[in-house]
Amino acid sequence: MNETINGVNLGNWLVLEKWMNPALFDGTTADDEYYLPTQLDPAVYEARIRTHRAEYITERDFATIRSWGLNSVRIPVPYFIFGDRAPFVDCVDELDKAFNWAEKYGLSVLIDLHTVPMSQNGFDNGGLSGVVKWAQTPSEVEFALTVLERLAQRYGSRKGLYGIEIVNEPLLEAGWNAMNPMERYKAVDPAMAEGSAPIAADWLKDYYITAYHRIRRHMGDDKAIVFHDGFDIAVWKDFMQDKNEYRNVVLDTHQYLMMAEINGCPQTVEGYDAFVQGTYAPMIEEMSAYFPVIVGEWCLFNSLGCGVDTHGGQSVLNGEEGAAAETLTVDEKRALYRGLADSQLKAWSKGAGHYYWNYKLLTDTVNTPGWIGWDCWDLGRCIAQDWYPVNHK
Amino acid sequence: MNETINGVNLGNWLVLEKWMNPALFDGTTADDEYYLPTQLDPAVYEARIRTHRAEYITERDFATIRSWGLNSVRIPVPYFIFGDRAPFVDCVDELDKAFNWAEKYGLSVLIDLHTVPMSQNGFDNGGLSGVVKWAQTPSEVEFALTVLERLAQRYGSRKGLYGIEIVNEPLLEAGWNAMNPMERYKAVDPAMAEGSAPIAADWLKDYYITAYHRIRRHMGDDKAIVFHDGFDIAVWKDFMQDKNEYRNVVLDTHQYLMMAEINGCPQTVEGYDAFVQGTYAPMIEEMSAYFPVIVGEWCLFNSLGCGVDTHGGQSVLNGEEGAAAETLTVDEKRALYRGLADSQLKAWSKGAGHYYWNYKLLTDTVNTPGWIGWDCWDLGRCIAQDWYPVNHK
Repeated sequence: MNETINGVNLGNWLVLEKWMNPALFDGTTADDEYYLPTQLDPAVYEARIRTHRAEYITERDFATIRSWGLNSVRIPVPYFIFGDRAPFVDCVDELDKAFNWAEKYGLSVLIDLHTVPMSQNGFDNGGLSGVVKWAQTPSEVEFALTVLERLAQRYGSRKGLYGIEIVNEPLLEAGWNAMNPMERYKAVDPAMAEGSAPIAADWLKDYYITAYHRIRRHMGDDKAIVFHDGFDIAVWKDFMQDKNEYRNVVLDTHQYLMMAEINGCPQTVEGYDAFVQGTYAPMIEEMSAYFPVIVGEWCLFNSLGCGVDTHGGQSVLNGEEGAAAETLTVDEKRALYRGLADSQLKAWSKGAGHYYWNYKLLTDTVNTPGWIGWDCWDLGRCIAQDWYPVNHK
Repeated sequence: MNETINGVNLGNWLVLEKWMNPALFDGTTADDEYYLPTQLDPAVYEARIRTHRAEYITERDFATIRSWGLNSVRIPVPYFIFGDRAPFVDCVDELDKAFNWAEKYGLSVLIDLHTVPMSQNGFDNGGLSGVVKWAQTPSEVEFALTVLERLAQRYGSRKGLYGIEIVNEPLLEAGWNAMNPMERYKAVDPAMAEGSAPIAADWLKDYYITAYHRIRRHMGDDKAIVFHDGFDIAVWKDFMQDKNEYRNVVLDTHQYLMMAEINGCPQTVEGYDAFVQGTYAPMIEEMSAYFPVIVGEWCLFNSLGCGVDTHGGQSVLNGEEGAAAETLTVDEKRALYRGLADSQLKAWSKGAGHYYWNYKLLTDTVNTPGWIGWDCWDLGRCIAQDWYPVNHK
């Protein structure tokens, strides 16, 4: 059994998110990684991407993460990591470096296949907004499996490898209904979006089983194979329960307070705490009977800290206005976030660990209107402002 | 009187240094900022520079610096900050943002004019290696003065302004002889380097007096005007001593252990400590009778930590080989650096404060040969590895 995961995501490094990194999208109308290269000269696109990757995460960050007492990083990677999907730029060298840093500084790595062609969720962070057609495209499903195989072959025997997550946030019907991706992330090309649909649970189970077998042969049983719950955790109770056939399988669930808000949680300290303890904690405890459960993404973000109802985590990029000024004092903000950190960490302790989303973001709350309250997505800023408990090592 | 400065430099942000940021120079043979745009397509050059500036220092870093208990940042700026020296890209928007961040997070800013056309020192970090002709070029001296005036006009009444440093590290004869810049930083174009010479102390005094008067009119007496000692601190005893005419003038001296090594300091813990206490501390104490003295650059870097004699801080980029493997254990390294931090901070306490060089560097000690021991130039890594004392706030 692995040690309890106390980790952080390195999101926006190898898979971009515009709201975390607005300058990279300067001078374009692109909202996602798919459209960015369509609006830039190829050499300029490559210059931006390579400079970003060389600067956003470095050896220094691995030393810093270790100094916070964390033991693992989850690294989202794109389907084009191996450079065989023009015009996108490969990034396997960066992942190689990350393994060397992780091993030097005593961190483990969860590789997370965060995007797939034609998208598994239609989110901006899936790489292609408003399109959900990957699961309907057999050649692209096969392509994703070959990426996983190549990752398993390359890193399967690395000391630093904790595991591989076989696709991030595939959207089942429940999540589709709750998050309404086709409205929230408008497709640029309606013809491309045509036919988008939620992924069927039975299909996803088959994919997970196939992916398990295709990569387990390249990885010792000490390496985890991690699958995401598709935002419908109860579906997985009867899944992969033959422990002889399915070894070291970990269930990843993403729990955000903005989803609690969508589900009617009152936007108060007491409301959030009650929801976390009353809904999230028992859910993780219950599912831990079937799998080790990690909360692979979570954070302190909530509407109360923003001073406005974000309607489930929507920003100025989605057309929601942020507050014009802080509505909480520094002390009130600290009390809010410390309380929510304690509450959530207590809930996650029912499972096998957690990864904060995210380590870092470039979003500027001072010089750019609309972003008050969004800095708590950044664990570095949370720690700097004493919003998150840490024992400096 | 200002509070004692406990600060850090934001070097390599608006003024580049290749050794801190190798990826920005990828695919070129440029060693400095002057030659970088000569070898890149203009759009690629701009993409690299703008992406670098948007990522290297952000709001997050100001929060972090404050959380370490520091109270000030020294920001090196280039002579082309206002965008009137093609092909270089302006960066005054970045400095504007930095003031807003500094004021939000309770830090003061020392603006440091780090480069001038034709160079004041011939160092790579002066922007043009192996050329020292600025002081001989009246039109460029005048240009530098207009940059200082524009900075004073723009920021002179900002709450966040600690002061303006009127030129970084102009090289007097003593420093020229000790550092031998024409050998250490070879000029690409010998014709351009022809006629390079150390700056005369009398000339520099005139420049400082002129600069003082040209910017003091735009800045209240609560803002410091900072001048660098040109690596010859004793020259300044009789300078600007009429305190009615010269108000709030601060002397900046840069003290590095690699200079102690050049001056024959033994490469041992005891040797460094003896040099710091026996030479640096009394020097700062003596000069404090004339001016508030800040150590505007210093760090923990030394050859013992590198495991090889660096001959005064020369790297693989200067043709020196680094060690192939660490020569000290983790505990030995910590003891070395903690001891040197304590020793130097004790010496600097004789003066008015200090700025560590540097906040951050991108240099990779794991994946790039030759850089063992160079990570201690990075205050973030020093703190992460418990090499530097800090009371987390």
